[in-house]
Amino acid sequence: MTQFEQWNGFEGRLWKEEINVRDFIQKNYKPYDGDESFLAGPTEATNKLWGILQKLQKEERAKGGVLDMDTDIVSTLTSHAPGYICEECKDLEKIVGLQTDKPLKRAFMPFGGIKMAEEACQTYGYTPDPELHKIFTEYHKTHNQGVFDAYTPEMRKARHNKIITGLPDTYGRGRIVGDYRRVALYGIDYLMEQKKHDFDNCGDKTMTDDVIRLREELSEQYRALGQMKKMAASYGYDISGPAKNAREAVQWLYFGYLAAVKTQNGAAMSVGRISTFLDIYIERDLKAGILTEEEAQELIDHLVMKFRMVKFARIPSYNQLFSGDPVWATLEVAGIGSDGRSMVTKNDYRFLHTLENMGPSPEPNLTVLYSSALPAAFKDYAAKISIRTSSVQYENDDVMKPVWGDDYSICCCVSATQTGKEMQFFGARANLAKCLLYAINGGVDVKTREQVGPELRPITSEYLDYDEVMHKYDQMMDWLAELYVNTLNVIQYMHDKYYYEAAEMALLDTHVRRTFATGIAGFSHVVDSLSAIKYAKVKTVRDETGIVVDYITEGDFPRYGNDDDRADDIAVWLLGTFLSKIKKHHTYRDSEPTTSILTITSNVVYGKATGSMPDGRKAGEPLAPGANPAYGAEQNGLLASLNSVAKLPYEWALDGISNTQTINPEALGHSEQEQADNLVRVMDGYFDQGAHHLNVNVFGREKLIDAMEHPEKEEYANFTIRVSGYAVKFIDLTREQQLDVISRTCHDRM
Amino acid sequence: MTQFEQWNGFEGRLWKEEINVRDFIQKNYKPYDGDESFLAGPTEATNKLWGILQKLQKEERAKGGVLDMDTDIVSTLTSHAPGYICEECKDLEKIVGLQTDKPLKRAFMPFGGIKMAEEACQTYGYTPDPELHKIFTEYHKTHNQGVFDAYTPEMRKARHNKIITGLPDTYGRGRIVGDYRRVALYGIDYLMEQKKHDFDNCGDKTMTDDVIRLREELSEQYRALGQMKKMAASYGYDISGPAKNAREAVQWLYFGYLAAVKTQNGAAMSVGRISTFLDIYIERDLKAGILTEEEAQELIDHLVMKFRMVKFARIPSYNQLFSGDPVWATLEVAGIGSDGRSMVTKNDYRFLHTLENMGPSPEPNLTVLYSSALPAAFKDYAAKISIRTSSVQYENDDVMKPVWGDDYSICCCVSATQTGKEMQFFGARANLAKCLLYAINGGVDVKTREQVGPELRPITSEYLDYDEVMHKYDQMMDWLAELYVNTLNVIQYMHDKYYYEAAEMALLDTHVRRTFATGIAGFSHVVDSLSAIKYAKVKTVRDETGIVVDYITEGDFPRYGNDDDRADDIAVWLLGTFLSKIKKHHTYRDSEPTTSILTITSNVVYGKATGSMPDGRKAGEPLAPGANPAYGAEQNGLLASLNSVAKLPYEWALDGISNTQTINPEALGHSEQEQADNLVRVMDGYFDQGAHHLNVNVFGREKLIDAMEHPEKEEYANFTIRVSGYAVKFIDLTREQQLDVISRTCHDRM
Repeated sequence: MTQFEQWNGFEGRLWKEEINVRDFIQKNYKPYDGDESFLAGPTEATNKLWGILQKLQKEERAKGGVLDMDTDIVSTLTSHAPGYICEECKDLEKIVGLQTDKPLKRAFMPFGGIKMAEEACQTYGYTPDPELHKIFTEYHKTHNQGVFDAYTPEMRKARHNKIITGLPDTYGRGRIVGDYRRVALYGIDYLMEQKKHDFDNCGDKTMTDDVIRLREELSEQYRALGQMKKMAASYGYDISGPAKNAREAVQWLYFGYLAAVKTQNGAAMSVGRISTFLDIYIERDLKAGILTEEEAQELIDHLVMKFRMVKFARIPSYNQLFSGDPVWATLEVAGIGSDGRSMVTKNDYRFLHTLENMGPSPEPNLTVLYSSALPAAFKDYAAKISIRTSSVQYENDDVMKPVWGDDYSICCCVSATQTGKEMQFFGARANLAKCLLYAINGGVDVKTREQVGPELRPITSEYLDYDEVMHKYDQMMDWLAELYVNTLNVIQYMHDKYYYEAAEMALLDTHVRRTFATGIAGFSHVVDSLSAIKYAKVKTVRDETGIVVDYITEGDFPRYGNDDDRADDIAVWLLGTFLSKIKKHHTYRDSEPTTSILTITSNVVYGKATGSMPDGRKAGEPLAPGANPAYGAEQNGLLASLNSVAKLPYEWALDGISNTQTINPEALGHSEQEQADNLVRVMDGYFDQGAHHLNVNVFGREKLIDAMEHPEKEEYANFTIRVSGYAVKFIDLTREQQLDVISRTCHDRM
Repeated sequence: MTQFEQWNGFEGRLWKEEINVRDFIQKNYKPYDGDESFLAGPTEATNKLWGILQKLQKEERAKGGVLDMDTDIVSTLTSHAPGYICEECKDLEKIVGLQTDKPLKRAFMPFGGIKMAEEACQTYGYTPDPELHKIFTEYHKTHNQGVFDAYTPEMRKARHNKIITGLPDTYGRGRIVGDYRRVALYGIDYLMEQKKHDFDNCGDKTMTDDVIRLREELSEQYRALGQMKKMAASYGYDISGPAKNAREAVQWLYFGYLAAVKTQNGAAMSVGRISTFLDIYIERDLKAGILTEEEAQELIDHLVMKFRMVKFARIPSYNQLFSGDPVWATLEVAGIGSDGRSMVTKNDYRFLHTLENMGPSPEPNLTVLYSSALPAAFKDYAAKISIRTSSVQYENDDVMKPVWGDDYSICCCVSATQTGKEMQFFGARANLAKCLLYAINGGVDVKTREQVGPELRPITSEYLDYDEVMHKYDQMMDWLAELYVNTLNVIQYMHDKYYYEAAEMALLDTHVRRTFATGIAGFSHVVDSLSAIKYAKVKTVRDETGIVVDYITEGDFPRYGNDDDRADDIAVWLLGTFLSKIKKHHTYRDSEPTTSILTITSNVVYGKATGSMPDGRKAGEPLAPGANPAYGAEQNGLLASLNSVAKLPYEWALDGISNTQTINPEALGHSEQEQADNLVRVMDGYFDQGAHHLNVNVFGREKLIDAMEHPEKEEYANFTIRVSGYAVKFIDLTREQQLDVISRTCHDRM
C-alpha cells in the first residue's frame, strides 16, 4: 500500500492500493445539507483580477471576437513561457496557468488540420508562419488530411450535402475528460509509475495491431505526464508528489486540465466532477485552521476564472455550428452516491456561488446532477441561481447512476462517461429530417439535386401513404446508419493516429472503456411529419422534375411536445429504430455504440440545409434544437412539453437527450422564493419520470429582443442564456441565432 | 482496352486491359542465343562521364567515405533542384537524375529516425539543422521512436544482447521493388487512374482498421505518383504518358527508381528485373533504324552509372552490419520463361558488359537467374565476366520459378518477390548459434551475463548429452521464434505508420501479397556443434559461477560442408525446425512467414557477440556467413561443399540461402576458356541439385592480402569481390572485415 505524508488525515485503503479517486471521495467526503448562508463574497484579489479580465473580454469583443493569436508557435505542453492574467499583479492569482503566455491569446494548434489552424489565423487578420505550413503538409500529416485520404466519395457527398454533419474531421473530437483529480491526489510520479506498470503488462507478447497501438499510446501518455511536470515547474510548482493542501489540490488539478487544453482543441474540453473531491481538501484545511471560508471561495473563484478564460482559435464554419465561442468546460456539482448519501458539499455551493461573485458566465458549463432526493436547501439555492443567471443545466442523476455509477462526468453537454475509466468517440450527428425527405425523393437531395442516398424508387403518389413512407424511411435510415458509422470509424481511427490525446488519456485508466457516440438532428420534425402523414392528409408539391419540394398538410394532427401518446410513441419508435440500426455495424476499437438527441446551436445550420417538411416547417428554417419539440408545436404548457420529452428512454440515448426550455419569470411565481419553489417542483416531477436533461432559462422574450437591439447596455455584457447543452453570452450569438433563440417557445404558463 | 500511339508495334492484349508488365514482356521479347560479339564498347561520353565519376569516388574515399551531405533539406520527391554528374557537360548524360542536386551528395532522410540522420551527418563532420531536430522530435514522430515506444523490455534486452540482431528499427526496411517498368510502359497518368479505380473499389463500405489503412495508403500512393511527374518535369521530361522509344523507356524507368531512393533509405533498394523489358524497346528502335547498338549500349551504361551512384547517409553501427556502403541495387538478367523459352536477350549481355565498359563495380548488384538450360553462349559469357570481375551472383531460376513465376525480382541479395505484385517485410535475423548457448546456460548470455532468455534449467553435466541439448534447444528456439516474430510485428507496423514507402508501393498492385522475412545467423556453427555433441564428446568448461564459457571437444565429428549426410541432415533439420516455429505465430498484416540463411557482412559483428561453440569456433570470432560451411570445415573440395549446401530445401527458406565461394583461378583451369567451361560445369551441377544461390569469386588469397596492404595501387581501385549476397570494393571494407574475407576458404581444388 502506498503512503504519502500529504495524505495524512484521509481515510480508506483501496484508493491507496490502486488509482481509485472514487473510493477516495466516498471514504472522505462530508455531505452538507445546510443552506448557502456560510458562503463568502469575492476577495479584493478576485475583484481586481475579474475586473482586468472583463476589460480584456470587452477588448476581445471589440476586436471581433479574438484578442490575440499565436502564429508561429505550435502549442505543446512546454511551448510557452508562463502566463498570467496580470503580469504586474501575478501574486494575486491564487491559481496560475494559461494556455499561452498571455491571457485570452489563442494558441496555434495544427495537428487537427493545418488548413483550419491557418484559416483561423487569417479570419482574424493574423498571418500564420509559412514554415509551419511546410512542416504540417510535407513532413507531418494532420488528422484532417488523414480523414480525407480515407473517405469514400459517398462520404464526401453525404458530408457536403449535410445529411451527416458537424463531423469532427476539421477539428478535435474532444469529449475526453481526463481525471484531473488524479494529479492532485497522487502526484505525477506515482501516475507515471502506474503507467509504466501497465506498459510492462500490456499484451500477452503476441504483437497484434491492437497491442502495438496500445503500447505506443502508453509511451505517449508516459511522456505527456513527464511534460506536465515541466509545464508546472515553469510556474514554480513541483507536481511530482501529491498536493499537500487545498490550494495545491486546486492548482495540481488545474495543471492537469491545462495540459489538456494546451494540446487539444476539441469541441468539448470538459473539466469533470471535481467539486466534491476538492471539498475534501478544503474541509481538511478548514479543520486544521489553515484556511478560511473566504480563502476557500477565493480558490474556487480563481479556478473558475481560469475556466472562463479557456479559448481556441476557430474557423467561421465551426462558429456557425457552435456559436458563441463555447469550450464546454463542463463541471458537475451534486448527485447522490451509490450508498444513498447526498454528494452535495459546501464546495458545490461555492461553484454555484461563482456566478454571484463574478456574475453570470457561460463557462464553466455548470451542471447540477439532479435528483429529487437532493437536500432541499441545495435544490432551493440552485433554483435561485438558475432564476438569477440562466447559467445552469440539470441532468438526472437517478437515470445516469445505474448506468455509469456515482463518479461519472459529463463530457460535453449531456454525455456521461465514468471519470477516469472511460472515453468517448464523439461523432456529431445524422440529420434524420433530411433522411425522411430522401426516403420520399428516392435519395435525391431537394436542395442540391444531387443523388446522395441510394437510388431507391421514390414515392410517386400525390398524397403520402403512411405505410409506404415508413417502409422507405426504414430503408433510407439503414443506408444512413451504415454510412454514418463507417464515416465515424474513419474519423476516430485518424484522430487516434494523428491527434492522439496523450495528456488526457494519461489521466485515464489504461484499459479504458470506449463509447462510440452518434447523434440525431431534426428529431421533432421527423416525429411531427410522420404524425401528420398518419393522422392528417399530406399532399406533395412537386416541381417540374417530379421532386417533392413542399407539402400541404390538410387537417390537424398530434404533435410531439403535448403529452399526446399518438405523437410521442412515434418519437420513442424513431429513437429506438435509429439506435438499433447504428448498433448493427462494426465500430472502431469495438467501442460501444450510443446515440444522442442533441444539436447544440447547429440546429440553425442544419435547418438551412434541410427542405420543407410535412410538419409545416419550411425549407431553410432552423430545426428545433436537441430533443425539443418543434417551435410552436407545444400548445399545452411547459409540463405537457416536459412530459413528452420524458417519455424518451434514456437507456436508448445514453449519449444524452437535450431539452432546453425558457420560462417567463411570471409563469413561475411572483416572489423569488415562489419562483424557486415552483422550479424545484417542476424539476422534481420532470426528472422523477426518468427525463434526462433540462436547460433552464428564466426570462421573458422582451429581454432577449432588447439585448439584441442594445448589446451595448452594461446589463447585457454578461447576459447568459442556456442553449442546447451549453450556455452562451447572448450578445456573442449571430443575429440569425439570436432570432432563432427569440423564436423558441417561451413558456408563459405551466 | 487502352491504346497509346507509343505502343505501336507491340503485340498482345491482356497488358492493355490491365497493368500487366509480365504479359507485355512475354508477348514481345525476343530471345537471343547468340554470343557477345555484337556488343559495343563505351562511347566517348561514357568514358568522360565515368572518368569524372571515378574522380569523385576517389575524392569520396579520401574524405573518409562521404563526399558531401545535406544538412537542412529533408529529402522528398521534389525537395531538390535537378542534379547532374557534370553540370557543364550535362548534355552528355543520356539518362539524368540524381538523389540530390549534386553527384554523390547524400540526402538527409529523417523519417526512419532523426537521431540516425543526425548521427550520420555528425559522423562525417556535418552539422544537421537544429530546426529539423525540433520538427522530427516535437511534431513528427519517426519510425525509430515508434518502434521503441512499443518494444517490450524483453525485446530491448534481446536486441541489446544481439540474439536478435540487425533489425530495421534504426534504418529503413527496404526490400520493396517498385515495378519501375510500369512508368515506362504506361506513363504516370494511367497508373494514377488505376490507383483511383482501386481506391474507389477498396473495401465493402465497412470501415475496419484494415480497410481504412489501405485507403489511406492508396491516397499516399496517388500523391506520390503526382510528385514523380513533378520531379521528372524538373529535369525537362513529361512522364505522364508512356515512353515512346528506348531512351525514354530507360529514362522513365529510372525516374521510378529515383523516386524510391529519394524517399527511402532501406538497406536494400533493388532495381528489379528490367533487362528483358528494356530490350523490347531497344529492339523496336534498332529495327526502326533510330538507334544503333553503340547508342543502345550507351543507354545501358549511363543507366548503370546512375545505379553505381546511389548512396545513403549511414551511421557507424550500420556500416558494421553492412560493410562497404552497399545499397543492393540488385538487377537481374536471364532466367527461363514459364513457356520454356530463354529470357536471355541482347540486353542481358549489355548489362554484364557494363562491367567491361566501365570496369568492375559492386553496384548494381548484378544477378544471373541461372538454369543449366540457359543458352550456352550466355552461360559462357557470364562465367567469363565472373572470372574477370568477381562481380556477379547466380540464383537458381529452376527452384524459384515454380514458387514466384517468371517475373520475380530479387529484392536484396537472395530474396525473390513477384515483380509488381508482392512486397516483403524485411526482418534481419536471429542468432541461432547464441540460442544454442542460451539453451545450455539456461537463458543466460555468456558475454553480458544477463538473463536474456527464459529462466529454464541449465545443463549441469560435465559432458553434453545430445538428447538433453536437443530438448533444451527446442524450448529455447520456441522462445526465440516467438520473441523474434513479435519484435518484427512491431517494426513492420511502425514502418507502415511512420515511414510508408508510398512511391514504391504506388508501382505495385494495390492488393499486394506480403511476405514476412525472418533470417538465421550462425547456421553452420549450430550444425557442427550439434554434430560434435552427437558424434564426438563435448566437455564443458565452466567459470566460477557455473556458466559454460568454453567447450573441449574430444574426438572427430562430421562437419557440414563435406557432403556428409550425418552433418547435413542436422542442417536440414535445423532449417525446418526454425521455420515451423516461426510459422506458429501471428504475423503483421497476415503476411506469409519465410526465412533465409543469409548474414551479409554482419557475420563479423554477430560473431563478436557470440561465445565459444562446441564446434571449436572461439568466442568473438566471426560466424561463417549465410549458409556457408564454417571456415576450415570444408575438407573435401568445392564440389563436396556445394553438395552440402544444395541439400537445404529452398522451399523451406524462400527468403533465400546465401552461399559465397572463392575459387583460385588455377583450380578452374589454365586458359580463360577452360576456366569458364569448368565454372559453368560446376554451376550446372550445383543448381541442378536444387541449390539456390552462389556468389562466385575467382581470385587467390595472395591478391586479397596484397590489396589489403597496398590499397593505393591503381589496380585495386575498383577491385570488387562478392561477399554474402552482394559485392563490395575490397578496399572499402574495414581491416577486420578484410581479414575475415581472407580467412574464408579459398578453394584450390574442385
